This record gives sequence, structure tokens and C-alpha cells, in this order.
Amino acid sequence: MSLSEFELIRKFFKPAERPSHGIRCGIGDDAAIVSVPENFELAISTDTLVSGIHFPETTSAEDIGYKALAVNLSDLAAMGASPVWVTLALTLPNADETWLQGFMSGFNTLAEYYNLSLIGGDLTHGPLSVTIQVMGFLPKGSGLLRSGAEDNDLIYVTGTLGDAGLALKELKQDIQIDSIHTDYLSQRLNRPTPRVELGKLLHNIANSVIDISDGLLADLDHILQESGAGASIQTKDIPLSDALISLDREIALQLAFSSGDDYELCFTVPEENRENLEKASAGICRISCIGRISRPGKGIEIKDNAGRQVKLLAKGYRHF
Amino acid sequence: MSLSEFELIRKFFKPAERPSHGIRCGIGDDAAIVSVPENFELAISTDTLVSGIHFPETTSAEDIGYKALAVNLSDLAAMGASPVWVTLALTLPNADETWLQGFMSGFNTLAEYYNLSLIGGDLTHGPLSVTIQVMGFLPKGSGLLRSGAEDNDLIYVTGTLGDAGLALKELKQDIQIDSIHTDYLSQRLNRPTPRVELGKLLHNIANSVIDISDGLLADLDHILQESGAGASIQTKDIPLSDALISLDREIALQLAFSSGDDYELCFTVPEENRENLEKASAGICRISCIGRISRPGKGIEIKDNAGRQVKLLAKGYRHF
Repeated sequence: MSLSEFELIRKFFKPAERPSHGIRCGIGDDAAIVSVPENFELAISTDTLVSGIHFPETTSAEDIGYKALAVNLSDLAAMGASPVWVTLALTLPNADETWLQGFMSGFNTLAEYYNLSLIGGDLTHGPLSVTIQVMGFLPKGSGLLRSGAEDNDLIYVTGTLGDAGLALKELKQDIQIDSIHTDYLSQRLNRPTPRVELGKLLHNIANSVIDISDGLLADLDHILQESGAGASIQTKDIPLSDALISLDREIALQLAFSSGDDYELCFTVPEENRENLEKASAGICRISCIGRISRPGKGIEIKDNAGRQVKLLAKGYRHF
Repeated sequence: MSLSEFELIRKFFKPAERPSHGIRCGIGDDAAIVSVPENFELAISTDTLVSGIHFPETTSAEDIGYKALAVNLSDLAAMGASPVWVTLALTLPNADETWLQGFMSGFNTLAEYYNLSLIGGDLTHGPLSVTIQVMGFLPKGSGLLRSGAEDNDLIYVTGTLGDAGLALKELKQDIQIDSIHTDYLSQRLNRPTPRVELGKLLHNIANSVIDISDGLLADLDHILQESGAGASIQTKDIPLSDALISLDREIALQLAFSSGDDYELCFTVPEENRENLEKASAGICRISCIGRISRPGKGIEIKDNAGRQVKLLAKGYRHF
């Protein structure tokens, strides 16, 4: 007979030994009991990944475990919070122990890296999906909102854009690329890097921050709407990986602007903080200045090398 | 064109105006930012409900919204915590606004009753399921664990047992009952009452508490295992509703012992707190003393009116 839910939870959700993070009661009771240190607030974010929608059905259990956590950590990164606790609600078509072992191995790789404690979970029977909630500490009164963009702020992004979108297109055989890029692209799709370290350094440097989950234009637009601002972007400054550079330029830009799943940060910084930002980010991750905020303002203006306005077909990933 | 995820979230997840509960940033940014008052800890619990598994596919949107929240609040009740914040991750096959309106109406009915604040959420496309995380305050150092049962503790349950199980059997036409009971049973299945008020009063009264989601025997067994204890129960003391009393007695007891979804509390109380308990619970909900703990001990002994040992077929709901 296969293991029951409780036996599976005991076997696979067993938390690693980590510094206690104020955990008085973790997995195994009706609720976890935790405490937030004085002078700190709690940042909380939740995201669901559904099989066939948020990851291809062929994705390995390890990659699903890794990605589900990474995607959630990316939201905390965009708040500048330090991740501490996580709960995991996993819905599985059957109690496949090999799959669970793989999933938890991917999940734990990232959880260990960030010294995260798994404090609760639920294991249910049904179509494959994962809902994770991550919680992190923020010094009281801090936190990087979407609404703080100011006139003349520089717009930055981390890493390179469009890689996950290209990886998906390759998987669907919509596009052919040199096999030299395959491994890199599949890592970018399945194991995105949440920019937690950089996020934590953006306090007192950035005026507004968001993570790019639905595509640069869609997510930058959230900053603009919340800040009552507009933006101007230069195509020449958009950071592209070698894989994207190898494509037709128009396709590459379309991907960089509008495809989702990159989990890079997009943030705005007053000119006078430029030097601090460059010092702070050195050795952490690539950052690129791609344009400027105008406030008041509306919408995004994209300019090519010759200063001409560029029109794009799609703005971002649509969930329904 | 149907509304996008963001428009749907803005339209339906809009939090009601409630006392702020230390919320500095709610829905609409990358993460919520909240603070826990000094001298309090945070109790956190998460549960997923999958269509066709945790509720019949014919369940109304209103009832799903109500039940998904009730089930989670029941876990906080079993900790004696005061619910404050909730996040909602909803996966829907399509962006059906009428369904969403119904779901949120059921959800909000209960959220308003407990003055809960919805601080975050995710709306995704996929097979219908709901993952909710509830968070509540606990005075520092308090909290009702499963592991505290002591020798000679009285075992109590709230409400009546087996109603949700009978409602399910009626729905599946496994059993026929007088139509006079139909409304009552469907309320018990679809709108369970989380015993939050009673849970809060059990501090300093109960030694151990759990909520009955998988059936009395299965859940009491968690208390016994965590406490290294055994239990003896009398069938004559098991609280049954009129609907169950109308059944063959053996079937009624089987349901009361082994069917899930009642979301009553099961707790153990030292004899000397009996009077305090009865005073505290008066006017809140029915409680029944059904047996006694023996510690050390193992397993559950069930005795009928004549003191003979009773054997049952199934112990509790199995998730896989």
C-alpha cells in the first residue's frame, strides 16, 4: 500500500536543521507558531504554478520544485525583504515517491541557499499544481514599493531579458536556435535566479521596484500606473544574452520586451544614487540602465538606435 | 474581451475597509507588508481544496468560497489563535466573473464575520482549486499543541460528528435519508463552522487540541501519537445530530468515528478544569465529553453501552 498523506509529509517535508528563525512550532501541528523580531515587519507573498500553464508538462520534478520557490522568492526580492519562512501546498495526481523526492530536492537546493525554513504545508490529491507562500523580514518602515518612481529616475533591469520566453519557444519548436544555447536557456526557464541579494541592497537606493514575471513592458507598466508616471526606453540598452543576440533583432526585442518568466528585477533610481547602485551591485549581478521615468507621464515610449519610435505587437503575458 | 488577471484581482480581491491590523501594504504590490504586535506570535496554516476531491464538482461558488476559508480557520481555532490576515491563491478553468463574484461573496461572508483582512493573492488559469493561508495572533508562549495530552485527561469534542460524511453519502445516493434533514446536512458539508471562539478560550483549560478534518479516530490518533498516550471512548457519549440518530446506529457511529470534513475540535482537559470549560463554552457551542486519556498508552479503545469493545472498519479519510 502506498504511504498516506501524513507518512509522505513526515518523509519528505521534514524540515532541515536550520537556525530557528523564531520558530516555536513548525510542521506537524494544526498551525506553525513563529515570531517576528522587534523592529522588523513581515513581507508575505504567494504564487501558484499550474502544470501545463506555468511550466511545460515535461518539466522535471527537480526543476518544478526549484522554480516554484524561485518565483516566490523573486517577489520578496522585489520588496527588498530577507526570506525566512515558507509554506508549501502541493497537489499531486498520485503519491509518486520518486517524483516527490525529486521535487523536494529541487526545492531544498534553493531553500538551503537562502537558509529558509519550511514551516507548514499541505499535500493533496488532484491535478499537479504548487502554491508556495514565502515570508521575509523587513526593517520596520522599509520596503520597496511600485509606487515610488520619480521624475527623471533612471530605469534599471537586472540580468538579461527574454531568455525564458525564447526557451519556451524552442521547446514548442516555434523557433530554431543553435544547440550551443540550449542548456543556458533551459536553466533560465527552469531555474530562474531570484535577485534577493540585490533587492536587499536597493533600500535607500531605488525609488520603486518590481519583479519581471509577465514581461518588461507589462511589469514596468505597473510601476508607471502606481506612480502616475511615463517611461522612455532605448532598445540599444536592453540587455540580451548571446542566445537572443543570435536571433533576428526584431524577434529578440519582442521577446525581451514582452515574454514572461525571467524573474529579473526592474527598478528606478534617482540620478544621484547611480554611483551607490553601481558599487552595491558589483559582484552580485549584471544591471543595465535602459531608460528614464517622466512624471507626470503615461505609457512607455520605445526608441531605436536612430531615435525612432518602435511599435510592438504584444505587451505581456495574459493569464486568462 | 474578458478581463485580465490584474483587472479581475482589482475587481474581486479588493479588500473591504477593516481595522488595519498592522497592514502597511496589502494587495497590489509584489508582497504584503504587515507587522505583528509586541508580545504576540503568529500562527500560520495553509490548506488546499481541489474540485472533485475536497468538494463535489456540483458545489456552488459561494459554498466553495465559504468552505475554503472555514477549513483554514478551523486550523487556527485548533491553535487558539485570533485570525487576522489571509492570502488566497485561486486557480480557475476560466475567467468566469459570475463564478468569481459568488466565490468572493461566500469567502467575504466569513472574512467579515472574523474581521479578517485579505492581504495577498494569486489568480491562475488551470483546474479549479483553492489554496488559502490564514495567519492569526497568539499571546507569546501560548498555543494549543497536539502533544500535551496527560494521563486521565477528559476527551471532548465540539458540535456533532459525522454530519458532513452523511451529507456526502446522500449526495452520492449511497444512503437515503428523510428530506427533513437535507438542508441541515448540506450546510454542515458546505458551510462548516470553524470553532474559533471556543479555541481562543481553551488556553489554560485544555492540554491538547486538534481539529477533526479527517475523522475523529484519525485525528484523535494524532494527539495520542504526539502525546505518547492512549484513549478510551464510549459510543453512548458520541454527539450525533438528529439526522444521524435517524440512521441505523452502526452506520451512524461509523460515520461519526471515521468520516471527515466536520471541522469540529477534539481536545483533552484535566478533570480539575471541567467546570471552567463548561462555564467558558456556555453560549458558544455544544461540547461533549466522550472518553479519557491514558498515558502512557497506545491506540483507541471504543466501548459500547454494555462495556464491550467495538471494532470499526475504517479509521479515517485517506488522502492518497
